Amino acid sequence: MIRSAAEEVVARCLTLSRLSEETGRTTRTFLSPPMHAVHELVGTWMREARLDVSIDAVGNIRGTRNGPASARRLLIGSHLDTVPNAGAYDGILGVVAGIAIARLAENTPLTVVGFSEEEGVKFAVPFLGSRALIGTAQPLLDADPRIAESIRAFGLDPERLADARFVDATAYFEIHIEQGPCLEHLNIPLGIVDSIAGQSRLNVIFTGAANHAGTTPMHLRRDALAAAGQWIHAVREFGLAREGLLATVGRCEIEPGAGNVVPGKVTASLDVRHKKDSVRYAAVDRILESAKDIGVRHVVTVEPVKLLDIPATPMDPHLIAMLSNALSTEGFAPHHITSGAGHDAMILAQVMPASMLFVRSPGGISHHPDEAVLVDDIEAALRCGKRFVESF
Amino acid sequence: MIRSAAEEVVARCLTLSRLSEETGRTTRTFLSPPMHAVHELVGTWMREARLDVSIDAVGNIRGTRNGPASARRLLIGSHLDTVPNAGAYDGILGVVAGIAIARLAENTPLTVVGFSEEEGVKFAVPFLGSRALIGTAQPLLDADPRIAESIRAFGLDPERLADARFVDATAYFEIHIEQGPCLEHLNIPLGIVDSIAGQSRLNVIFTGAANHAGTTPMHLRRDALAAAGQWIHAVREFGLAREGLLATVGRCEIEPGAGNVVPGKVTASLDVRHKKDSVRYAAVDRILESAKDIGVRHVVTVEPVKLLDIPATPMDPHLIAMLSNALSTEGFAPHHITSGAGHDAMILAQVMPASMLFVRSPGGISHHPDEAVLVDDIEAALRCGKRFVESF
Repeated sequence: MIRSAAEEVVARCLTLSRLSEETGRTTRTFLSPPMHAVHELVGTWMREARLDVSIDAVGNIRGTRNGPASARRLLIGSHLDTVPNAGAYDGILGVVAGIAIARLAENTPLTVVGFSEEEGVKFAVPFLGSRALIGTAQPLLDADPRIAESIRAFGLDPERLADARFVDATAYFEIHIEQGPCLEHLNIPLGIVDSIAGQSRLNVIFTGAANHAGTTPMHLRRDALAAAGQWIHAVREFGLAREGLLATVGRCEIEPGAGNVVPGKVTASLDVRHKKDSVRYAAVDRILESAKDIGVRHVVTVEPVKLLDIPATPMDPHLIAMLSNALSTEGFAPHHITSGAGHDAMILAQVMPASMLFVRSPGGISHHPDEAVLVDDIEAALRCGKRFVESF
Repeated sequence: MIRSAAEEVVARCLTLSRLSEETGRTTRTFLSPPMHAVHELVGTWMREARLDVSIDAVGNIRGTRNGPASARRLLIGSHLDTVPNAGAYDGILGVVAGIAIARLAENTPLTVVGFSEEEGVKFAVPFLGSRALIGTAQPLLDADPRIAESIRAFGLDPERLADARFVDATAYFEIHIEQGPCLEHLNIPLGIVDSIAGQSRLNVIFTGAANHAGTTPMHLRRDALAAAGQWIHAVREFGLAREGLLATVGRCEIEPGAGNVVPGKVTASLDVRHKKDSVRYAAVDRILESAKDIGVRHVVTVEPVKLLDIPATPMDPHLIAMLSNALSTEGFAPHHITSGAGHDAMILAQVMPASMLFVRSPGGISHHPDEAVLVDDIEAALRCGKRFVESF
């Protein structure tokens, strides 16, 4: 029975992946036209699972099964939207698996939610759905009138945003693909998220002097790219040497950027993530110190510009223990994993205990049409999810 | 008298810098409208120096003073065109100084030439003027019909290209700003060019795997930019360690190039120059070997793509000796210097002995409005140039 539920989950994700703004590709941004059909299908599946369906002012779909007024109530969910040219599982898996668990745990009062927006593609503001649910979305609508316009164009009423607030739950649970290679590398299907890593995003600007590559001897150069190159390699070495630290230079703008001109200026991005904020802050400090040391050697000035500092969001220890117990009981290693990407659970954790279960991503691939899951892994997630929900 | 000639050379260069396609900036590409006024002024100055003036089919201006039919005849020149937003001296200094020397060396048969095109701005083909003079420009006109159109629009006749050929000279001499910081660094006004360096231009493509910067642990990454960064720094170290070698990475295209994505592919430029081709080839080989070694460590493949291989052009040893003698006699150190940039002398050297004299560039600045010369240095160049021309 759980096997066939797992097969159904995969089939449903694939069905939903065909509901897209673009032919032949899966692209589903905030309240775009295909979201009507998504609401229709997801609503049907929710009702089949004996959940009462409602859609709120931002397009979150919610399926609720009531129990005794005093009962502890779990909120299970993830998001309905996708990045452009997406795969079939990021986000939507957590909604569809949530419905499957609701059906398997047939007597448990719970709510399954599909958030209308998490990726931030359309308005460059992520987590619109979950922020509406916890009651912090109004400033987003105030800042960008296009959001309310999109809501109206879809046939919903932005004036009713306050009604989207839903804190009638005692905990949040989200199933999501890992989007990385760690579980595959360990050859295990599931990972219990211990924390959503904090992020530091910076630009590091190296300023030397642009010069003719044919007329400026090496010892008289102030080559911004030679300095940046040495530092980029040092960032990698630094990250490799520290457990759980992710340090990435993904972008580099070079001025003037001609093959026959010594680079005068390089603006390099820096992205540092760790589950412990203190470790992350110390790492950023050390990485910037090393940039300055390298700059001195190249007679290049180094100026860091801080862009973003998102604190880590630890998952709830009690829920982690319950999930560990569920996995162990079902015969799976209760492996803990840190999420380097942001998730709706990060937003929900602001108002209630939150937890996440990662499902192995074959090839570590996500945000790509090749994104996949294994049916065995989905079955494992449903078994453990059912046990977790029923033990709640 | 030479002092006032030097002051006049500087004043004339500044006057010509105001003849431009753009208000407030010096930009003078191949046969653009301001070139009419340049021909007018330069022609007037040539006639004042008792030179017979003619303009050939590509717009080269030539001033000739005949002597006995058997006389050895020097061709002195440089180019009239500029890069966009140029300074006042690159190219034009060699023409204006040539005219001044012709006037100072009043009884010497010689020809002064101003080439209409050297920079290659308009059609991405440099040396159009000097190639017409040595008779190798026809293929350029055949390949790009816009060149003949430009010639006609200026009022010249591309059918008469063959008449532009002029090999009625026994040697070529070019005065040019150094465009680099070496003479300034040595605190000397002049440098005798021993060779125009050969150039290797390549792209080096590093291919790893693009991955989510938040979900891919450091040890499972194949970061193309971390590899390229290490290599870029190694290129600089390699260049620093080898006398006279210039090795530059000036451009780097990163894919996908987002701050939160581990770079999957980097295309880096490589520019290597040296006066000895054997040294340059060996350097390119070693630099590419080091790229491959670094690639192996990062699990990143490395593919070099050769784009350009221009052999070195040694200047004529006899003319170098004559120039050394002229400088020594005038009390200047006969310092030898390699030109890392290409010059018309490179083209003329294909058909006759060629020589160049570099004038110190304050701040090493060129191709920029801040390009400058010192009047003292121009005076030195005229003294040495006059002596050289008269001893020819």
